[in-house]
Amino acid sequence: MVMRGKFITLEGGEGAGKSTNAQFMKQQLEARGLEVVLTREPGGTALAERIRAILLDPDLPPMTATTEALLMFAARAEHYHQVIAPTLAQGQWVISDRFVDASFAYQGAARGLGSQKIAELADWTLPGVQADLTLVFDLPVEVGMARVASRGGAIDRFELEPPVFFEQVRQAYLARAAQAPSNYCVLDASQTLAEVQQAIVEQLDRLCPR
Amino acid sequence: MVMRGKFITLEGGEGAGKSTNAQFMKQQLEARGLEVVLTREPGGTALAERIRAILLDPDLPPMTATTEALLMFAARAEHYHQVIAPTLAQGQWVISDRFVDASFAYQGAARGLGSQKIAELADWTLPGVQADLTLVFDLPVEVGMARVASRGGAIDRFELEPPVFFEQVRQAYLARAAQAPSNYCVLDASQTLAEVQQAIVEQLDRLCPR
Repeated sequence: MVMRGKFITLEGGEGAGKSTNAQFMKQQLEARGLEVVLTREPGGTALAERIRAILLDPDLPPMTATTEALLMFAARAEHYHQVIAPTLAQGQWVISDRFVDASFAYQGAARGLGSQKIAELADWTLPGVQADLTLVFDLPVEVGMARVASRGGAIDRFELEPPVFFEQVRQAYLARAAQAPSNYCVLDASQTLAEVQQAIVEQLDRLCPR
Repeated sequence: MVMRGKFITLEGGEGAGKSTNAQFMKQQLEARGLEVVLTREPGGTALAERIRAILLDPDLPPMTATTEALLMFAARAEHYHQVIAPTLAQGQWVISDRFVDASFAYQGAARGLGSQKIAELADWTLPGVQADLTLVFDLPVEVGMARVASRGGAIDRFELEPPVFFEQVRQAYLARAAQAPSNYCVLDASQTLAEVQQAIVEQLDRLCPR
């Protein structure tokens, strides 16, 4: 009987350092003898990457919030059933860059569908699925946007949104974390990388004592 | 104040003659002085056609039924809000080759999600939306499959399914029609085209007396 791995999700606005710290967490957990799979949303399977391409395409005309939410959950269902669940069942840990909370923030709050509608769709799509720990990388919107601008590269459909959109994303993440503090940890991502990583290590110690 | 147009959906398995008769219905209604828009699912907008390409791609690995249903409803939401609803609001009639009933038949019955799950997702996505008339083109599965084979052309992901799949689709359509006979009409599509079209004209007379 293999012990199920733990499922960690990373959330937060643009430029908050999720990708960098996902790598750091993987190394930390591997140093503790665990096998760890890093993945991301939307995407993570061939089909989900096809859906991701639609969701992020800045050349498509605006889609309704309903459509955007359904596409996000379509990609998420595929990602969960094909990658996350089987990996956890084999005893490996999974770190996902975004998961269900992202839809509460982006489609629920910033696009205006509301948290009740997202909760219903989450329950329809993935009943009972819950991360063991969600780290929210919290950062003032202008700091995150400046970081995104400085790293350059292509701009996706979400990155075209105005600051008020990302402020709603930020507040929604903080509200989610406040509702279930035992499953969430809000990290102050405006600190130095060393400080953020110290806070991450403390959270990993809770899940996996050294 | 423009009078809202009527919304007619055509349902049925493969090879049942929906496309041919959609054209016939358009001509019949135009002869009665109506403006009519023909459309189809999945598809009907640039975004929905991108989703259609994923849904029908025979080269993608199998997706979960949950994912397939979410993609269908994502395309449907877009199609409804961008095409169907504005067209009806302008007083034009809309004939759609497939709509919500197709998900009860294909994802609910044949893929096994169940009608309750489809009803929940339909209510989440398009609350209160209902066609004025749904014509079910009913045909023994082997007759429909023989017609599809004889017309040749590329095979999509659904057409790769075995006969039992299409038998479940057929029975689900008949069950939907039996539950709400005032909104549905089951046409015996194994009759001659002239006989089918006579039955269609009778239905159009009900909606739009000459």
